[in-house]
Amino acid sequence: MKANAPRRRCHAVWLATLLISLLGCGNEPVDPSTVAEPAAAPAKVYQWKIITTWPKFLPGAGMSAENLAERLRVMSDGRLDIRVYGAGELVGAFEVFDAVSAGNAEMGHGAAYYWRGKMPIAPLFSAIPFGMTAQEVNAWLRYGGGLELWRELYAPFNVVPFAAGNTGVQMAGWFNEEINALEDLAGLKMRIPGLGGEVLERSGGVPVNIPGGEVFTALQTGVIDATEWVGPYNDLALGLYSAGRYYYYPGWHEPGTVLELIVNRQAFEALPADLQAMIATTAQAINDDTLSDYTARSVAALETLEREHGVLLRLLPAEVIGKLRQASLQVVAETAGEDELSQRIYKSYTGFLNGVRRYTDLTEKAYLEIR
Amino acid sequence: MKANAPRRRCHAVWLATLLISLLGCGNEPVDPSTVAEPAAAPAKVYQWKIITTWPKFLPGAGMSAENLAERLRVMSDGRLDIRVYGAGELVGAFEVFDAVSAGNAEMGHGAAYYWRGKMPIAPLFSAIPFGMTAQEVNAWLRYGGGLELWRELYAPFNVVPFAAGNTGVQMAGWFNEEINALEDLAGLKMRIPGLGGEVLERSGGVPVNIPGGEVFTALQTGVIDATEWVGPYNDLALGLYSAGRYYYYPGWHEPGTVLELIVNRQAFEALPADLQAMIATTAQAINDDTLSDYTARSVAALETLEREHGVLLRLLPAEVIGKLRQASLQVVAETAGEDELSQRIYKSYTGFLNGVRRYTDLTEKAYLEIR
Repeated sequence: MKANAPRRRCHAVWLATLLISLLGCGNEPVDPSTVAEPAAAPAKVYQWKIITTWPKFLPGAGMSAENLAERLRVMSDGRLDIRVYGAGELVGAFEVFDAVSAGNAEMGHGAAYYWRGKMPIAPLFSAIPFGMTAQEVNAWLRYGGGLELWRELYAPFNVVPFAAGNTGVQMAGWFNEEINALEDLAGLKMRIPGLGGEVLERSGGVPVNIPGGEVFTALQTGVIDATEWVGPYNDLALGLYSAGRYYYYPGWHEPGTVLELIVNRQAFEALPADLQAMIATTAQAINDDTLSDYTARSVAALETLEREHGVLLRLLPAEVIGKLRQASLQVVAETAGEDELSQRIYKSYTGFLNGVRRYTDLTEKAYLEIR
Repeated sequence: MKANAPRRRCHAVWLATLLISLLGCGNEPVDPSTVAEPAAAPAKVYQWKIITTWPKFLPGAGMSAENLAERLRVMSDGRLDIRVYGAGELVGAFEVFDAVSAGNAEMGHGAAYYWRGKMPIAPLFSAIPFGMTAQEVNAWLRYGGGLELWRELYAPFNVVPFAAGNTGVQMAGWFNEEINALEDLAGLKMRIPGLGGEVLERSGGVPVNIPGGEVFTALQTGVIDATEWVGPYNDLALGLYSAGRYYYYPGWHEPGTVLELIVNRQAFEALPADLQAMIATTAQAINDDTLSDYTARSVAALETLEREHGVLLRLLPAEVIGKLRQASLQVVAETAGEDELSQRIYKSYTGFLNGVRRYTDLTEKAYLEIR
């Protein structure tokens, strides 16, 4: 019985409201300086998922999506509420692009060279052998037309890409035996995926494709003779120093790998302009942040590798580098294939690289040589 | 008479409202899923000023504040409304820090070495001779403790700093005559302010401090023999190629100059958390963006300088570099002075540089040498 009382009272409220309405008070002249703002609609909360190609909380690359989601949450005052999933939690690492394309997740974080099977030219938006460094590729993407081409390449898949992280120049990898001459590459079984693997093959080696989780055991048991990974920060975490004694440099095959944020186009376009702008700006901040993370943390990791684990650092011999460079130019040129867009991307990338190379030689390179 | 009609109707509205109130409908149990949010207060708009040390719309550095303000306006949906002032519009270039400290402007954009008179250690947060590159200094600021020390240094002035732009490695400058040996520095009158000027003086030269606007004429009329500026992008705009024929590299005195965003502390702390986060993240995005701008635009500018204006590029001789390096180590060490905080900053910077130098040698440097 008690429960009915409020309901009965509200019939009277309904009548009173009707009275206000009929009396037409809403039409009376008002002084705009004293009127309150109309009641705002409750802020819409976008509950999104970001899926990544990295193990959850992987140092460096794996933290980019965590940092992105956290910053967006604070900046949007909770309106963009993005949950982060590591590889395999919702979809496998190599299914990230398709899942974002289909809208099964609104966002993904990975690297463009993983989608090479779908788009052979895609590696030019992450890293290619003997390609651009982080500073150079960022300049190409922002002020050299690269980002527009990347958007065009992903558009048929309903995916919008943003640069969101960079590893800097990586290391060439871990080797069981020293590499002293070109002949030491002959028959060398090395875990090196993508274009780098093709280059190794044309240089006499045998590229092997095995998942990250099996790399350590494969190297230790001699299933492979060598493996590339990333650099001191990630490699120390994987324990590769106890499987391969020689740590070669520099990472000719990944000289500044761009990590990407990809967003489902319909989801992105459904956002108000302020949230769209937050995503673009936060991706660019993360682009800056991830490279700093890799750089700073690799310093301490490198010291640990050398002092505590007796890792021996080795520069790849000039003869080997020469062969790899020659093969790389061929392999990369072939990625352009026949289609018009891929050729435009290839021309834009190589044209920018040819120009910026001279500027880098006069600035970063010349400075590092005289410091 | 007509005008009275609405007012009379609203007496009835007042009665109806009283009726609702007396009936106590507000106390009835409600289903939270159907209730509207309380009417939001109108969003507070912060009308701010950002004053800069750069001429309005200067390519590169001068665009950082413009881009920052524009992004913040869109991301905040107009709540952060920041007007940009070039040097001399509200205060002179070298009064920016004091004006932000006093709260006469909420924000400033410049570079820390301009405040050396007030804080001799400040140049370590922009650029020092033979110091860190852009990638290295970003890593130190973000993940090496640098930013916390910078905040501590500026705190007594009520100023909060953020890294917000980088020029990359600059050029050594424009010279009327070739520099072939150390003796060519003897008596050389060069416009080179700050620590670089002190280093030149200890190496036999005569540093001259003249405002940017007078540099061209001074070089052309022989009042000075040489001048440093920034790099191809900014130097082409200033027309320096027609006053000094030899363009020397690399920029030993500014190997990766950090541009800074400074915010008045009271103004910053009065902002809600979402706007504070937007400022921090946008500054970091601009940090990435400005370096890309300088890198991409310098490529085309360098081509114009060489092909159209016959500029001759020259590498500083090893003997000269050796002397400048030796003098730089002394000059920078002296900036630490006696006070405890400055010594901590000096130790943090040099400690990080000593560690990261080896990592850079194995990655960026080794890669650029074999590419």
